[in-house]
Parts: sequence; C-alpha cells; structure tokens
Amino acid sequence: MNFLILNGPNLNLLGAREPGVYGHRTFDDFYAELRNHFSNHSFLYFQSNHEGTLIDKLHEYGFQIDGIILNAGAFTHTSIALADAIHAISTPVIEVHISNVFKRESFRHHSYLSEACLGSISGFGLDSYRLAVEALIQHKQND
Amino acid sequence: MNFLILNGPNLNLLGAREPGVYGHRTFDDFYAELRNHFSNHSFLYFQSNHEGTLIDKLHEYGFQIDGIILNAGAFTHTSIALADAIHAISTPVIEVHISNVFKRESFRHHSYLSEACLGSISGFGLDSYRLAVEALIQHKQND
Amino acid sequence: MNFLILNGPNLNLLGAREPGVYGHRTFDDFYAELRNHFSNHSFLYFQSNHEGTLIDKLHEYGFQIDGIILNAGAFTHTSIALADAIHAISTPVIEVHISNVFKRESFRHHSYLSEACLGSISGFGLDSYRLAVEALIQHKQND
Amino acid sequence: MNFLILNGPNLNLLGAREPGVYGHRTFDDFYAELRNHFSNHSFLYFQSNHEGTLIDKLHEYGFQIDGIILNAGAFTHTSIALADAIHAISTPVIEVHISNVFKRESFRHHSYLSEACLGSISGFGLDSYRLAVEALIQHKQND
Amino acid sequence: MNFLILNGPNLNLLGAREPGVYGHRTFDDFYAELRNHFSNHSFLYFQSNHEGTLIDKLHEYGFQIDGIILNAGAFTHTSIALADAIHAISTPVIEVHISNVFKRESFRHHSYLSEACLGSISGFGLDSYRLAVEALIQHKQND
Amino acid sequence: MNFLILNGPNLNLLGAREPGVYGHRTFDDFYAELRNHFSNHSFLYFQSNHEGTLIDKLHEYGFQIDGIILNAGAFTHTSIALADAIHAISTPVIEVHISNVFKRESFRHHSYLSEACLGSISGFGLDSYRLAVEALIQHKQND
Amino acid sequence: MNFLILNGPNLNLLGAREPGVYGHRTFDDFYAELRNHFSNHSFLYFQSNHEGTLIDKLHEYGFQIDGIILNAGAFTHTSIALADAIHAISTPVIEVHISNVFKRESFRHHSYLSEACLGSISGFGLDSYRLAVEALIQHKQND
Amino acid sequence: MNFLILNGPNLNLLGAREPGVYGHRTFDDFYAELRNHFSNHSFLYFQSNHEGTLIDKLHEYGFQIDGIILNAGAFTHTSIALADAIHAISTPVIEVHISNVFKRESFRHHSYLSEACLGSISGFGLDSYRLAVEALIQHKQND
Amino acid sequence: MNFLILNGPNLNLLGAREPGVYGHRTFDDFYAELRNHFSNHSFLYFQSNHEGTLIDKLHEYGFQIDGIILNAGAFTHTSIALADAIHAISTPVIEVHISNVFKRESFRHHSYLSEACLGSISGFGLDSYRLAVEALIQHKQND
Amino acid sequence: MNFLILNGPNLNLLGAREPGVYGHRTFDDFYAELRNHFSNHSFLYFQSNHEGTLIDKLHEYGFQIDGIILNAGAFTHTSIALADAIHAISTPVIEVHISNVFKRESFRHHSYLSEACLGSISGFGLDSYRLAVEALIQHKQND
Amino acid sequence: MNFLILNGPNLNLLGAREPGVYGHRTFDDFYAELRNHFSNHSFLYFQSNHEGTLIDKLHEYGFQIDGIILNAGAFTHTSIALADAIHAISTPVIEVHISNVFKRESFRHHSYLSEACLGSISGFGLDSYRLAVEALIQHKQND
Amino acid sequence: MNFLILNGPNLNLLGAREPGVYGHRTFDDFYAELRNHFSNHSFLYFQSNHEGTLIDKLHEYGFQIDGIILNAGAFTHTSIALADAIHAISTPVIEVHISNVFKRESFRHHSYLSEACLGSISGFGLDSYRLAVEALIQHKQND
Repeated sequence: MNFLILNGPNLNLLGAREPGVYGHRTFDDFYAELRNHFSNHSFLYFQSNHEGTLIDKLHEYGFQIDGIILNAGAFTHTSIALADAIHAISTPVIEVHISNVFKRESFRHHSYLSEACLGSISGFGLDSYRLAVEALIQHKQND
Repeated sequence: MNFLILNGPNLNLLGAREPGVYGHRTFDDFYAELRNHFSNHSFLYFQSNHEGTLIDKLHEYGFQIDGIILNAGAFTHTSIALADAIHAISTPVIEVHISNVFKRESFRHHSYLSEACLGSISGFGLDSYRLAVEALIQHKQND
Repeated sequence: MNFLILNGPNLNLLGAREPGVYGHRTFDDFYAELRNHFSNHSFLYFQSNHEGTLIDKLHEYGFQIDGIILNAGAFTHTSIALADAIHAISTPVIEVHISNVFKRESFRHHSYLSEACLGSISGFGLDSYRLAVEALIQHKQND
Repeated sequence: MNFLILNGPNLNLLGAREPGVYGHRTFDDFYAELRNHFSNHSFLYFQSNHEGTLIDKLHEYGFQIDGIILNAGAFTHTSIALADAIHAISTPVIEVHISNVFKRESFRHHSYLSEACLGSISGFGLDSYRLAVEALIQHKQND
Repeated sequence: MNFLILNGPNLNLLGAREPGVYGHRTFDDFYAELRNHFSNHSFLYFQSNHEGTLIDKLHEYGFQIDGIILNAGAFTHTSIALADAIHAISTPVIEVHISNVFKRESFRHHSYLSEACLGSISGFGLDSYRLAVEALIQHKQND
Repeated sequence: MNFLILNGPNLNLLGAREPGVYGHRTFDDFYAELRNHFSNHSFLYFQSNHEGTLIDKLHEYGFQIDGIILNAGAFTHTSIALADAIHAISTPVIEVHISNVFKRESFRHHSYLSEACLGSISGFGLDSYRLAVEALIQHKQND
Repeated sequence: MNFLILNGPNLNLLGAREPGVYGHRTFDDFYAELRNHFSNHSFLYFQSNHEGTLIDKLHEYGFQIDGIILNAGAFTHTSIALADAIHAISTPVIEVHISNVFKRESFRHHSYLSEACLGSISGFGLDSYRLAVEALIQHKQND
Repeated sequence: MNFLILNGPNLNLLGAREPGVYGHRTFDDFYAELRNHFSNHSFLYFQSNHEGTLIDKLHEYGFQIDGIILNAGAFTHTSIALADAIHAISTPVIEVHISNVFKRESFRHHSYLSEACLGSISGFGLDSYRLAVEALIQHKQND
Repeated sequence: MNFLILNGPNLNLLGAREPGVYGHRTFDDFYAELRNHFSNHSFLYFQSNHEGTLIDKLHEYGFQIDGIILNAGAFTHTSIALADAIHAISTPVIEVHISNVFKRESFRHHSYLSEACLGSISGFGLDSYRLAVEALIQHKQND
Repeated sequence: MNFLILNGPNLNLLGAREPGVYGHRTFDDFYAELRNHFSNHSFLYFQSNHEGTLIDKLHEYGFQIDGIILNAGAFTHTSIALADAIHAISTPVIEVHISNVFKRESFRHHSYLSEACLGSISGFGLDSYRLAVEALIQHKQND
Repeated sequence: MNFLILNGPNLNLLGAREPGVYGHRTFDDFYAELRNHFSNHSFLYFQSNHEGTLIDKLHEYGFQIDGIILNAGAFTHTSIALADAIHAISTPVIEVHISNVFKRESFRHHSYLSEACLGSISGFGLDSYRLAVEALIQHKQND
Repeated sequence: MNFLILNGPNLNLLGAREPGVYGHRTFDDFYAELRNHFSNHSFLYFQSNHEGTLIDKLHEYGFQIDGIILNAGAFTHTSIALADAIHAISTPVIEVHISNVFKRESFRHHSYLSEACLGSISGFGLDSYRLAVEALIQHKQND
C-alpha cells in the first residue's frame, strides 16, 4: 500500500523545538525507522508551514493513495479549510498528534479536523504515526 | 467593465467535491457560460488554496478593476486578514456562497468578510456569481 | 410568473426613516420601477408591522405563487414563527436586506430566517429586491 | 368542565406542514375525536398566528374557565409576553407540544412558558392534548 | 403640550395582575389623576397586547406629538422592531417601568428599547409615568 | 400490558423529603392506587440511588416489556450514560417529573434524557406517572 | 425633607470632562438651581472618587435622612460593596445617570446597584437629579 | 505483559445497541480474536455500568498490571472521579473509543479523561482496542 | 454527640495518591488521632467510590445522627443527586476539602454541594475534618 | 501568637445590617468573647470600607504577624488587588465568610481571594472566625 | 518636559513581592537611574494602593503635565473608573506593565485602561517605564 | 547587533490603506529613517501576506539573529502556528502594533502571540518599531 505522511507547521523543527513537549528525536530519524518497520509498504513524506500547501497536497494525493496520516500541528485548531479538504477527497485520513494535546492550553483541545477524519491518535510521541499506519492497513483490509 | 472572480480553498474541486452540497458542475463550465452571458464585460478568474495568495490578488487588482466577486470558502469564517485586505482596497467586493451556509455547521454562520464587503449573496448555487455581477453593474451605474 | 414582495416592520417608513442607513427613496417609487423592469411578470406587494399578519400572508400565498421576496426587518432576528412559516409553505422564499446587516449592531448578525430560505441577498440597497427576482426566475427555470 | 384549547403560529397548517415532524392529521379531525372522548366536558378551540391575539384570548377566558391547553408553537421560545399573560390569569394552563422539542434545534429546547404553566407535556403527537385534558380534570378534582 | 401614553402587553390587567409586583390600582384610576395633575397638557392613552399595533401607533403619532411615554412590558426585552420604530420617528420617547425590573428575572434586565429612547425611568410604581411627563416637559423647554 | 416504573435518586424519601416541593404522599401509597386504576395492566416498580443500577434495569427490561416510566431525579441533568441506555433499548421510555422542574434552579432546566425518550411529562405531582401510563397505552395502540 | 446627593468618580470634572457625553455645565451651577427649585427641602452634596468614602457616607446618612440620590459613575458597574451598603441602610436610594448608559459601551449596561435601589432614572442630563428628588418626595408621601 | 481492558456503561450491549454507530459485532467475539492476536500477553476484561465499580477496578489493578485500556463510554464526558482515579494509580491508561466521538453530539467532544491518560485513540471501531495494546507494548519497551 | 465522616471517590488512596496534592498521611492514621482528640464524642467512618452508596449512607444516618462531615471528592463538582440527598435529610452536613480546590483546575471551583450544606471548610489538609467537628459541636450548642 | 482580624466593607454594620443574612450580634460583642476564648494569644482587629486601606493593612502586618483572618465582604468577588496583596505578603491568610455565600446571588459564588489564601471557611456565622483561629494555630504548629 | 509616574496597588512592595514575577529590584533604585538617564526632563513619582487616590492624582496632574506613565497593577483589570479618569483628562497616558501579563492568569489578559491610553508597553521588566518615557517624548515632538 | 523586522498581511499597503487608522507614511520611508537612527546596528526587513512564509522566516532567522520585531497584523488574532513558531526559536521576539488595537473591534483585543513574545508595544504609530528596537538592545545588554 501507499501512504502519505503530511506534517504541518513547525514540525520541521522536531528534535530542536521544545524538546520537553515533543522529544529530542528528529522526524527524519523516525521516518527511516518507520519505513524499515513497514518494508512492504511505500511512503511519501511532506512537511509545510503553509496551510495552502497542505491543502494542495491533500488534493494531489487524496484520490490515488491508500491512506494519509496528517499531523496538522497548530492548524488542527484553526483551519476549517483543511477540514473541508479532508471531506473533499476520497482517501481516508488519520489525525495524529505527538503530544497529548489535552494536557496543553485549552485552545488546543478543539480540533476542526477530527470530525472529518477516519479516527484520531494522540499522545504516544512519534509512535502515534506507527499506530496510524497500523490502523490504515487494518481499515483497508476490512473494506 | 472589468471584473475579477476570486475563489478560495477547495473550490478547485467543484463538481468533484461533496456534490450533495455543491452540485455536479465544474466551475470552468459555469465560467464559460457566465462570460457568454455578460459578453460586454471582461472577466478574470483566479482560484487558490492559499490565504496569502488571495490577499496578494486583492492587492494586485483592488485599485484598478471595477468589481471583485469573492467566494472565500472556509476562509470566510477564519480570516481577519482577508477582511483587512478588502477594507484596504478601493474596488467594491461582493461576498458569494454557492450553498446556503446557514443550513450547515454553526461555525459557518459567522463571516469575517460580510462587514467589509458591499453586500452578500448566498444559497443560489453557481447562479450566486451571476447575481453578484448584476449587482456590481448596477452599483457602478449608481455612482 | 407571479411574485409576492413582503415587507416587515418599519419598512413603510422607507425614505423617511434613518435615511443614512436606508436611503431617501420610498418603496412605492422603487416598486413602480421594479414592475416596469420585469414587465412580463406580475407582482403583489404587502407590508405589515404585525408578525402574525406576515405569517398569515405567507400561508395565503405560499402554496400558489412562484416566489416570495421577504424583507422581515427586525423580525429577521427574533421570529422563529416566521422561520416555521417559511418551512411550512411550498413556495421558495428569498431573504433580502437593504442595508448590509453585518455592518450594524451584533444582534442584527443572526437571522432565524436564512436557514429556512432558498438564499439570502443583503447590502445592495433597494437593488437587493431586483436581484432576488432575478434569482427566483433563474431558480424556476432550473426546476 | 369548560376547557380552552389555544394553538399558536403555523398550527393551522397541521396535516399540511412538515408531516415528517407533525404527522398527517388535521387538527379539526383530532378535535372532533377529542370532544367525543370527553363528551361530559365542553371545549372551545382557537388558533392564531398573532402573539397579541393569543394574549387577548388568555385574558378573555383566563378568569372564567376551568383550564387552558396551550400549544404556543414557536412563541414558546420567544414570548415573555405570553408567559406574563399566563402568570396574570387565574385559570391553570398546561403547555403541550406535538413533537419532542428536545429532538429538534437547540433554540427549541428553551421555553419561556414552562415556568408559568402548571405542567408540560411534549412528544406524544396529538395525544399530548388528550393527556393535558386528563391532567386538568385530575387537577381540578384535587382542589 | 400633547403626550401619548402607550402601554404594552398585559398592562390592561393592572390592578388585577400580580398585585405583589404591580400594585392594586388600575391604570384608569391613575390616568384620571395624572390628567388632573397636568391639566395644562393634553394626553392620549393607548394599550395593546399586539407588538404590531404598538409600532403602528408609534408611526401614527411619532411625527406630530410632543412626547411619548412607553411602557412596553415584556416586549421591552424581546422586540427589536419596537426599538427600530422609536429610532424611525422624530418624537422623543421615554421608557418607563412600574416595577424595578432589576429585582426580577435576569431576562428582564436587558432592554432593547433603552438605547433608542431619550431616557429610562423604572421602579417608582405608577409614579414612573408622572416623572416621565415631567422629564418630557423639561426636555421640550431645553430645546 | 407490562410496564416498569423506574425511580432514581432520593425518590425513596418521597413524602419525607422537602414536602413543599414533592408533596406529603409516599410513593407506595400512590403505587397501590395506580395499580388499582390500571387493573388490566401489570406493573413492576424499582427505585435506586445508583446510576449504574438504573442502567442495569433498563438493559434487563428494555427488550421485553411494553413501556418504561422513568423519573431519573437529579440524574436527569447529569447522566449521559442513562440517555445512552435509553437509546440502546427497544422499549419506549417516558420521562416524568413530579415538580415543574422549570420553576426550580436553572441547572434543572436541562435534561439529557428528553431527547432519548418518547416524550416528557412534568409538573403534575404524582399524577405525572398516571398520565405517562395513559400515553404508553395509547402509543402501543397506534403501533 | 432632607436629601443627600452623592456623586461618584470623575463627576467632580463635570463641565470639563467629555462634554459631548456629559454636557458643559458644572455640577455646582446645577446644584444651586436645584436647591432654589426645591426651596422647602434641604440638601447635602458630596462627591468622591473613593469607593470606600461613598460607602462611609451611605452609612453615615443612611439611617437619618429622607432620601439619597446616588450617581455612582463607573462604580455602578463594578462595586458590589456599594450595592451591599445600599441594602444595609434604611434610607431609600435612587440611582441616577446623566447620560443614557445604554447608548454607551456594553460594560456600562449592567448595574450592580439597580436591584438594591428604589428605582433608576437615566438619560435626562442633570435633570435626572431633579426627577429623583420628585420621586423621593412622592415616595415619602405614599408611606 | 498483563493488560486490563475496562469497558464502561452500555458497552455490554455491543452488537445489539445502535449498530449504525457501534457495529454488529459483540465484544466477546472481538475479545477472543484479540487474545489470539497477542498470544504472548495475558488479558483481563471487565465491564460495568457503575462508575464506582470502574473506579474500584482501576484501584485494584492500577498498581500491579502493565497497562489499562479504558473505554469509559458516556462517563468519559461526565466523570471527574474517573479522571482522578487514573491520576491516582501508577499503571498507564489509554483512552479508546469505538466511534469517532467528534462526529456525534457536541457534549461528546469533551473528555475529562484524556488529560489523565497516556494517550487517546478513537474512531477505528473495535480495532481501537488492538491499537491501544500495540501502543502500550511500545510504551513499556521505551521505559 | 454522634458524627458520621463520609469520604467519596479515591479518598481510600490517601497517602498513596498524589502526595504533592493530598499529603503522605493515610486517613486511618488521622482518624485514630481525631477520635482521640474528641474522646467525648463517637464517630462513624465510611468511604465509597460509588455515588449511590454515599447517597444511601446519607439517607441511613441523616435522620438520627448529630452531624455529617462530607468530603465528596470529585462528586462535589458533578453530583446534583448528592446535593438533593443533603437537602432531603435533617442532619446538618459540612463540606470539607483537604486541598484548596481554588488552586486547582477551574472545573473544581464549582461545588453543587456548598449551597446544600451548613458551611464549607477547605484547604487545611486533614485538619479540615477536625475544624468541621468543632463547627458541628458549636452549631449543636447554639440550637 | 499574634493574629490580625481584618473586616471589609459594610461589616461595621454587623448586627444592624440585614439580620436575616448576618445575624443580630455586633462584631464587638463577638470579638470580646473570641479574645476571652483564646486568652493565650493576642489579637488586632481592623475594619475598613476602603479596599486600599485593607491592602495597606495587609502590607503593614503581613511580614510580622502569625496569621491573618480576612473577611473581605463584597471585595471577595471584585478585588484582584487584594488577592495580589495576599500573594505578596508572607503571613498566612484565611478567608472567612459569615453567611454561606453559595446560598446567595451567583456573583457571590466566585472569590478572587480563595486561591491566594491558605484555606477558606464559610457559613458558620461568627463562629467562622473562631474556626479560622483554630486552623491558624494548628497550621503554625505543623510548621 | 514634565512626567508623572503613577504606580498602583502592591507596587510599593517591588523587590520584595513575588520576585519570580517582578524581579528583585526596588522601584526607588530604578527611579534614581531613570531620572539620571533622562536628566533633561523632570519627573514626579506617586504610588498608592487606593483606586480613588490614583484617580485624584490623574485629575490633579492631568491638565498641566506633558505625560503620565501609569502602571495600575491589578486595577488594570477591574477599574472602569480609572479608564474614565484617563478619558476625562487632557494629558496623554501610557499603560505599562513590568511582567508580560499574557503569560499569567486569564483575568489579567483584559485591560479596561488600554483603550483609554495612547498606547501600551508590557513585558520588559522595569525597562517598560523607560520605553514609555521615550514614547512620550517622541509623541510630544510629533504634535 | 542584527535585527529582523517582520511585517504581516496588508502592511505592504501602509500609507495607502486606511490612513485614518494607520497614518499616511509608507513603511519604506520609516525604515530608512529607522536604520539611520540605529546606524550601529544592522537590519533585515521582510513583509508577507502568507502566514507560512512568516513562519519560514522565523525559523530561518530565529536561531542566528539578536532580535525580531514582529507586526503580524491580522494573524495576531488567528494564528496559533505563528505563536508556536515563536516558542520554537531561540531569538527573542517583540510584538508591535501601529494602532491601539484595543480601540478597535473586539476580535482584535485577543492576541495569540503576546504570551509567546518577550513583550508587547502597541499604539504609538510607526514609533512602536523604534521602541521595540530600544527594548531589544536593553534586553541583550541585561543578559
């Protein structure tokens, strides 16, 4: 199967940014390990700080790929346009978060995206991405 | 007269996206018909999923064209920056919506743009755009 | 086609009442011009300051006429009974406003009627009525 | 005993209006049956789309009759004046609703009238009226 | 000078209705005394339970009389249409209340009318009307 | 027919508890009378102060009995789990209240259960239960 | 009779402060005229920018004088302690405002004092004070 | 490793209850398959409709087992006591939901438990439980 | 005198649970000391994680004992049923909290119980219980 | 030990003010008894209707005395400055209230001071002060 | 130029009070340095814990001095009277805060004063005062 | 030292856009003067209408420059992603606004950025930028 991992704003700084919240590991390190772990599947990875670019990518891959794992970062809480894009495409999307967003500021407790996604996984560090891949594989097999 | 039609996020998928809400027709089909209908006037058309690009376009055309028809999609409900751009330019802007936004989720009932625009037209499908052109022509003649 | 124009409270004072908000023209002047403009169609016009009378009129004409243009004035923001009447009848109703209600007090930003109507047009002065007629004609032709 | 049944806005359309919500039966049919069922009691029936007329009727009968069954329709949610009228009279009033208002829009969940009435009955279709008569008879016998 | 006293819903029951809140005196008794007290001025008195009728009366007298004393009863808290009517006329209007509305339910603490009126007087029983006449006489003399 | 009457927290103290609000009669007295009144039907009665026990009882009888009359007391305002249980079973449930909950504290004005029940009856003292039985019998006959 | 006029914060600047809102006249000018007008009654006048001093004055005179006219200025909207002081004394207090507070910022629409006072008068400029004296004289005569 | 699966109110009806929301499969079927899938680990399973019993179980196992998977059903949205119990124990707890709670009523969008748990997984049907076990195994290996 | 100490959910873990908030001492240790301190009075002690059991205990002892000291833990903020039980019984109840609940999450700042209790004591650690006994003894002596 | 008792606005009227709420006893009477009761400790007592004076007193004694008992009256609900003063000093402060504030108006349910104080005691009449002294003595002994 | 520095409640304790928030330096030390830094300008400095005294000072200097630097401490969030005083005087006022109030409790995020002041500076420690002087000098030069 | 000035949406139109709010001067004019004024320091200037581009710039310079002056325009009120970017970098950021945002619409009163920045300066026209540079120089010298 083919999966797209789509990371939103500030996630390019992972490992550097607020390690108390997000940990010390870079996404590249984790990504290499993830591809290894799921060596029978192929992955695409994309990060952008631009809401419009994330929407463009959802449109580009959202009709041809098996699943999308989306960590929209702060756009989770502010972007109705991203939610609309998820509704507009046919590929299932899973919302992931590295930290437990419910332990943080109250404006991070609301997600515009959850209701548009297949499901949500949050709080397991980078392992949230692996669980999302597991969930997509199972979801495809149930179809 | 010269008019700019500016479409916001996800409206590039018109015809493909949620046809129960937005209908089955592509914007290109409708646009050809619209230009035919108003053959004495000239039109520009632009779509973007990027809030910043929509602002750039408002700045670029907002001091030299006779009217702008803006369907800002989901940015309608989240973008104060777009409202500021409409206030900043001299060309009159009309807010249009394809669907009746008041029949949808409550977060779609508030528009940051309405107060900055000349007027608003919503709920008539793609015909909302034609009515906006009619309104602009009349508005110009009253000046 | 046959259309009913239904005006709500205080709109009988148009031309006299707060001209800075509503303009200097009386509705009678405008109405004569409107009938001229759409000389192939026939119109009925009714104004009342009584919520009950507006409901009675919607019931009376709402099963036999081609379209209703409703400017419910202040009842827009307070009358669930009018919204129920619009849902109860079969004729399509368009909500119009002379002023851009979103530039006014916040209690005028919410409409109980929008969700019950085919669509809404606001902010174009008396031309809002003409645009509503245009919208109804097009809507009937699409049926 | 003498009872007044008072129906508010749009209830004249019962049977025609939104049968998915209100059923297919007209109030006249039901009313005939109700009088039959309670043949030892006498009934008056009045419907109006005018809030003021409903208040007038409450004043007219509210000092001389044994009980009033009030379905104020949409005025339930907006009319403090009706609540004041119920407080002002001496006859007990029962609030009835045909549909279960709590399954509908959130603005229908609040009633200005409940606190002024003896009690409330909602959700049993037209049978709500019969139950209200039963309740009034029992209430009178307990006096 | 000529003054109109306009009483809203349920105030016809004064003396009968909730005497703990409104006192035992009828408005007719008080009105005779008031005319006596201000024997140099002429008065009109009108009461209605119909919001539309109150608006009609404001329109009828609001361009030809010296002052209007309005006790809109429960419409105070729900009628934007009445506030619009006060804005639309040229005669100054004073809002009066018999009871101290701030000692009652919280939904009686907000008035749509106050901001449209010259001033407000509440809590002095029927004497609130006399004070309003005093205020209007002084206001006219300052013009 | 078979009916279950299910009473929630503190209703075991009926007759002893706050007689100003709930009256002086014990539920046992009333229950005997009720069974007499509907001698053609059979009844089960259960009271618990435990939310979980009420849910267990709904599950136990909710697929085999003709109707359930539920006075959930204070759980009415706090228990989503009870509402879920009502949705989960197939037997119709009627919500009853002895007092008019709308005359009491504002946190008693919201019911999580209303929307899950067939209908609601409140404010008639213990007679609310009799009316609920009447409603269930009629409801069954209409099936 | 003996009356105390008590003015709160910033009212010492009357005539100098924001004349668009409060007028050009000083309170001393008006006070001289007021004493003249009510030459049979005696008056005390006190102004302070200190909440505590206003409370002290209410305590000092609130058990021995015939009436208090209180314009608490901005403390109207923030001081529960002043409201408690009014409740604690036996002399009736009338709340007055020079401007129509309902035409100003929304935080000026709520008064902690209204519910503790005999009544409220606002919007008549300095004449509000005269009307309050009239109201107190009448109130005393009704005792 | 040893895991406890703890299911809250109404989840005993899985397969029978609202299959449109929760699917047609019973938990027992799924549980057998889950144990098979993780045959190297041992599991305990407990369901209760009683909030207190769920707290008792968290206390009983929360200091001696490797991980707890908690689907608290409706208690998720109302029980601070459950959240306190999770904070009080030392075993990591994962919150799971079968349905995507964000597609349902707004009162289901808030969880008291999320902030107390290691992480949350929702929307994947019964597969949410398997993902939670995967997450716990990985979490233990990272210690 | 006879007193009942009633502890709610999670208080059985005192000493083990979050010692930073609740201290290191077990309730049994403290209870022994308390009985020693008030050796002239007799005490009963009960703890439960079940809301229903706490209500049962209030009913059982609430008509025969001299005072009840209630630390309802998290039920303080969610249980209207407990508040109703306190209202229903005749024994005075004092609300105690070990920690200063106002230094914690905002959902712990509201208590449904305070208004039903004689008084509240919070923030003094386990000494809050001793103070409550002192308060009850004094209260009984004032009777 | 040395203690300061600090009473806020309107508490000088104790015994005279609203005896239904605050009792008939003056503070001086109670104070004499309190000093008698704790004859081994020395007390200072201060009352002011001025928020600023209360802050000055907290600063003056807040670094040299063993404990402060503060009944801030209405300032409890409005004064962030008092809360800041309590945070700024080193002496522990206990918040007391004579009445059970939770039985009164909702604006009395929030305290700015609670979170800054060691603990709170309310509802025991003047005995609340004695309990606070007891609490301070115990608190000091635990240091 | 002449400037007044006006400090509100608890700022007399600077250096002693919560040094983690406000730093270890006393205002006197800083003030000496500030006067040195701006040796061509003259300064007045005043601190009070009394809202009324701060208003008195604004009145006293607000018509004769070149600029006022106001750190109103906690009154920032509660005092409409101070905002009114700033509006009433002619001297420009700058709001300063030592700490970044937006990093603190949410009730410190709203300022009644900001809208009345020329501008606001917060978060730079005592340097906020120096920046305010700089701003006033520049502002005066632009006049 | 090296500073980055980062301007957000619509600030490219400065001088042209709403001069009543923002003044008549272009940013280029001001920028030349600013560089002159601080001739010992070097500056970079960047403007974008794209939220993503502003985030990219914060990432690019936020680990290598001495300070950033950010006027995020309308993004101030809507962008959590910008706040996250400020938290993620190590360079101190100062929030500046040309106008006093507190004199404008209420949705401009909340800033997502303030809490992430070193401090905030608003209301001094373009001089706000100069003050921010002053603040950064002082801040660096204090390190």
